[in-house]
Amino acid sequence: MDIEKANDEAVNRMMEARPMLVGMGKAIDVIPGMRDDLLLHAGPPITWERASGPMRGAITGALIYEGKAKSMEEAQRLVESGAIKLEPCHHHQSVGPMAGVTSPSMWVYVVENKTHGNKTYSNVNEGYGKVLRYGAYSDEVLERLRWLNEVMSPVLAKAIELGGGLDMRNLLSEALHMGDEGHNRNKAGSFLYTAKLAPYIVQATSDSELASKIIKTLGDNALSVLNPVMASCKAMADSAHGVEGSTIVSVMARNGTDFGIRVSGLGERWFTAPVATPRGLYFPGFTEADASGDIGDSTITETAGIGGFAMATAPAIVSFVSGKPKDAINASLEMYEITHTEHKYFTIPPLDFRGTPTGIDIRKVVETGITPRVNTGIAHKEAGVGQVGAGLVRPPIEMFQEALVAFAEQYGFA
Amino acid sequence: MDIEKANDEAVNRMMEARPMLVGMGKAIDVIPGMRDDLLLHAGPPITWERASGPMRGAITGALIYEGKAKSMEEAQRLVESGAIKLEPCHHHQSVGPMAGVTSPSMWVYVVENKTHGNKTYSNVNEGYGKVLRYGAYSDEVLERLRWLNEVMSPVLAKAIELGGGLDMRNLLSEALHMGDEGHNRNKAGSFLYTAKLAPYIVQATSDSELASKIIKTLGDNALSVLNPVMASCKAMADSAHGVEGSTIVSVMARNGTDFGIRVSGLGERWFTAPVATPRGLYFPGFTEADASGDIGDSTITETAGIGGFAMATAPAIVSFVSGKPKDAINASLEMYEITHTEHKYFTIPPLDFRGTPTGIDIRKVVETGITPRVNTGIAHKEAGVGQVGAGLVRPPIEMFQEALVAFAEQYGFA
Repeated sequence: MDIEKANDEAVNRMMEARPMLVGMGKAIDVIPGMRDDLLLHAGPPITWERASGPMRGAITGALIYEGKAKSMEEAQRLVESGAIKLEPCHHHQSVGPMAGVTSPSMWVYVVENKTHGNKTYSNVNEGYGKVLRYGAYSDEVLERLRWLNEVMSPVLAKAIELGGGLDMRNLLSEALHMGDEGHNRNKAGSFLYTAKLAPYIVQATSDSELASKIIKTLGDNALSVLNPVMASCKAMADSAHGVEGSTIVSVMARNGTDFGIRVSGLGERWFTAPVATPRGLYFPGFTEADASGDIGDSTITETAGIGGFAMATAPAIVSFVSGKPKDAINASLEMYEITHTEHKYFTIPPLDFRGTPTGIDIRKVVETGITPRVNTGIAHKEAGVGQVGAGLVRPPIEMFQEALVAFAEQYGFA
Repeated sequence: MDIEKANDEAVNRMMEARPMLVGMGKAIDVIPGMRDDLLLHAGPPITWERASGPMRGAITGALIYEGKAKSMEEAQRLVESGAIKLEPCHHHQSVGPMAGVTSPSMWVYVVENKTHGNKTYSNVNEGYGKVLRYGAYSDEVLERLRWLNEVMSPVLAKAIELGGGLDMRNLLSEALHMGDEGHNRNKAGSFLYTAKLAPYIVQATSDSELASKIIKTLGDNALSVLNPVMASCKAMADSAHGVEGSTIVSVMARNGTDFGIRVSGLGERWFTAPVATPRGLYFPGFTEADASGDIGDSTITETAGIGGFAMATAPAIVSFVSGKPKDAINASLEMYEITHTEHKYFTIPPLDFRGTPTGIDIRKVVETGITPRVNTGIAHKEAGVGQVGAGLVRPPIEMFQEALVAFAEQYGFA
């Protein structure tokens, strides 16, 4: 068996995927396998008992949002009794930042990979601070979430369709030349996204006050494009999954308790290990003692060759980890050690337009001992608080070792 | 006399200037000293006889636009007879890219320096290709110009006012962290500009088709913010002008025939020398033999510490001069040799957020023999054609030498 050839195929599929943002819809209407008694969440499978504070907070918020619970106690009862099921977003071609909790009536972006035909989904970005994805669930948080979903999203859906969809690979290529790395920094991408959609938002509603407010909401949120970016990375990564004999990582995701990966040639199996706590810069009044364990599906960006892997494009955010621009360059250089190739379409200006390091090879991670670099937001460890900082984290190497052992067993190298 | 102290004052004034885009109006209504028989143009004073092809083309187009001429022959007669006067934009606190021709009924941006109170002006950007500022003046060019001025600008003016104005120093600081250098590359700035104004454009007209078209026009033009940026740089540079004993350059401008500079401590006098031809990348079908001499007021960006001086922020455009990202870094490093200080608010991420080289000191230019680096568009040398490329140019050193001699004479150092 030729692992290199299999990896060529997997990573080529990943790079040739052409994710287009084609629309939006309610989760229950568009996400395959979504059910009324189901909540999707970030990372590998989790139970209430083992769920972190922010995950419990987001589950509670989503069940209040759906009118199914009034308190955390009720939410806990519903989940523990099995009346409400929890399944990973990744089991439904979906991704969600931080807790990533997506409930049936929430609106989600629909991304279609024009090269391979697969579709992916992600919820709507709420902005910074006290937000559901960081485990906050106060009335104010849910009221805002309701506006974003029930008022903004139907207009945005129509605007996306009127515009004929948005080529997200192009958008990302451009944003990487504008100081974004596509995970923690999506500022240029969000301006681009806003500027591209605004002409159609105006046409999508006869209420000009509403159009104005929606455009302002997108333009003022430097993460507004993060969720369509994540769905796009998921579309790329999914198309690399399932290649016989490939050692390329096709999913990295965290639920706040466990980090989990999946490997292209190893089917639907998750390899998991306990998450680390991110190092980073904390908002005033918070310290590392307040931090939740690493959480979120946003590591799909690094899986697809951007985010921490494209750190060299985003010197403006190295200060999150008290680094210098030189450290940003070195971060990207290090990732070439554990990846299969250089991206065809995502390039790094300060490295002479070298392609971003793309396609994590579990063999290289285990051989070198270098784990993927992940940029991330940091949630408070208690439910209900929200974001407390942003920084850097590494996944545990044990998952990669375990996956390599499984690979050897499955393909008869043991 | 303490030249260093005078230069400190001049450059501090330049950096502390806080240009806000506050509105728009017709040139005749808002530009001081604008008259019905007057055209403003880029660079130092020029006559029809000595004017370059693109300058003649733009003058002709402006007079057709105003209904005062029907052909280049008529335009020539009007100018040579003195019925129509030509004066530099810079004599009227204004700036215009390339030919920079501004006629009485054209709409202009109004920028107000909130620190020192001075106001500045610039016309509306037409996009790329066959456009008036590059000397094209066909019916199609003038029809588009008419839409931009008579249909778009009144709505844009209202939107700027509804938004309470736009802080251009902030916008530039952000854009410099997004791969723009603010002269040849204004892509991120133009998206930012579009995203910031779009919510107010929607409110500024009840015609949603028009609002949509205006937003799309701004968002699709990667130079839409150039003209407000230039007016902002003019506001900064003007506030540095007129400091007794200062050797800081407060204007650099070209009319296609002559390059001209003014110096803070040397009053309204222009020091001029023949322009060079830019080196650069040509559009398909054109070569350096087609190029006009260096033209435009856009060198106000380098005068204010951005553009070619901030080249290190914009590795994505070094290919215009067949360079590598390392050359972009070196371009900025070289400019520290001839400038007074590092900018307080404009910083360069890949140089550890060092401030951009700011305040060209004629003494340093003459001592080192290093002339300012200027990024520029390239016009066809014949009237009527338009843009043929983009690249790099240096002003002639003779102007700086002549200015230094004048300085020595005026201040008694001779």
